[in-house]
Amino acid sequence: MDEKDREFWTETCQELIKESQNAISPLIGSLEGSEIVKTGADGTPTMYIDIVAEKKVIEVLESIDKPLTLISEEIGQVNLGKGQPEVVMVVDPLDGTSNAVKNIPAYGISVAVAPIPTNQKGPLTVQDIQMGFVKNYATDDFYAAFKGQGALVNGKNPTPSSKQDLSQISLGAYVYRMNMGKVEKLCKSVRRMRILGAVAIEISYVADGTYDAFVDVRDNLRLVDLAAAKLILEESGGIVTDRYGKALNGKLNVMEKTSMIATCNSVIHQEIVRIVEGIK
Amino acid sequence: MDEKDREFWTETCQELIKESQNAISPLIGSLEGSEIVKTGADGTPTMYIDIVAEKKVIEVLESIDKPLTLISEEIGQVNLGKGQPEVVMVVDPLDGTSNAVKNIPAYGISVAVAPIPTNQKGPLTVQDIQMGFVKNYATDDFYAAFKGQGALVNGKNPTPSSKQDLSQISLGAYVYRMNMGKVEKLCKSVRRMRILGAVAIEISYVADGTYDAFVDVRDNLRLVDLAAAKLILEESGGIVTDRYGKALNGKLNVMEKTSMIATCNSVIHQEIVRIVEGIK
Repeated sequence: MDEKDREFWTETCQELIKESQNAISPLIGSLEGSEIVKTGADGTPTMYIDIVAEKKVIEVLESIDKPLTLISEEIGQVNLGKGQPEVVMVVDPLDGTSNAVKNIPAYGISVAVAPIPTNQKGPLTVQDIQMGFVKNYATDDFYAAFKGQGALVNGKNPTPSSKQDLSQISLGAYVYRMNMGKVEKLCKSVRRMRILGAVAIEISYVADGTYDAFVDVRDNLRLVDLAAAKLILEESGGIVTDRYGKALNGKLNVMEKTSMIATCNSVIHQEIVRIVEGIK
Repeated sequence: MDEKDREFWTETCQELIKESQNAISPLIGSLEGSEIVKTGADGTPTMYIDIVAEKKVIEVLESIDKPLTLISEEIGQVNLGKGQPEVVMVVDPLDGTSNAVKNIPAYGISVAVAPIPTNQKGPLTVQDIQMGFVKNYATDDFYAAFKGQGALVNGKNPTPSSKQDLSQISLGAYVYRMNMGKVEKLCKSVRRMRILGAVAIEISYVADGTYDAFVDVRDNLRLVDLAAAKLILEESGGIVTDRYGKALNGKLNVMEKTSMIATCNSVIHQEIVRIVEGIK
């Protein structure tokens, strides 16, 4: 991806983020927004506000001059524009939907871009992501990363926490009808725990030390949801693996799921992997 | 408390909330704000931002014409003004301190007022609270209640959730170096869980259906922290008890601690008490 392309896709992402935020803003905290309207491409129930967010994303992407493949929660996968797609764009149009409809201030968008090499064979994976953007609409906090070029939080280079003592960390976790078994020991091992219910935002929180770590060990986390935030955290200097400590390499599609451990540094990372895996 | 007094104390509370919010705003998300400066009257470590918040509260209360007793986290208990105190004011100057210094958007103030009858014998309890105010500084959401006259959320009368099915509820919980034992079964019994780490705001969330319930079963929750939000939830039609289902009646002082179950209605309340107590 050359500089010109990078600028084009950055501007496109910023535009679709702005437009989608405007489109859903009347639905924040509303009953209308929370109406279940269908089942998404990934099998989870879809609220009206999700549809409005994604529709606006598609509208913006249809208005640009370049062909792309869009992978998104409700639509699944679709090619937009004429000709061979130049990039795969992986979007969660509304991270933290249930917060948005209740006006809990942790909801926003996740957009990741992977260029498609002209000689590409086989599907791209999450490791092919070159740009990532996450925005918390409730606070306007904006997280961005470009592969090999670092991350930005509200325009400044973030630094993850340098804590080495697990008993002093703030841990975010994603749980849903939870089996606490796997994370129970971990929860007791840390200082502070948060469950905000907005995965992309909470992974990004590790990039600038808001959290020291974030885990989702359900094996049910969609790659679509973490694609941008993974790059943001890695480019800040943090670490992302699955719950076994292995690199994530899932294919870019809406059905691909994984577990995830996202941390500030290798000392904390290894400790958490050991505890989650029951080695310690 | 007559209408004139009610107006006076309402204005005083609004003034101290505004002034204290202004005073801490430069410290949000800052290292300076998070510096541990001493141990508070209740034995927990105190950050610099806590001191700034409380100092401004005291400053505003010293500037008014009426005598009162202030009960607050760091200062413990102090009489302000000349003569016999007319009210006890119970303040948590910064609910969610650790969020404030990390810029996690759930932090604010809790202010409760209990008039002191002229023939008062013995200490007042949390049941004597007549006015309660909670503000989330990060979002400017404002919660208020006047005993016997209802609650207000951003100026409108809130309605708690009418859900009857525990498996469909959103549950907030407060945990710290947590023993999940007592809440583990409860967590598995609900649809969605949140841990925001801001007790007064999260109890207030039950008043308008943002949450369906909030629990803190550590027996370590300070009355100072819940005094205002308890009234806000009760005046909205919700229910607050300890973890045994008994009415809270703790004395108004900084050392008094309790457990708490705060819910939207009696059906959900009874279910949660039974699960927490291991009856079900």
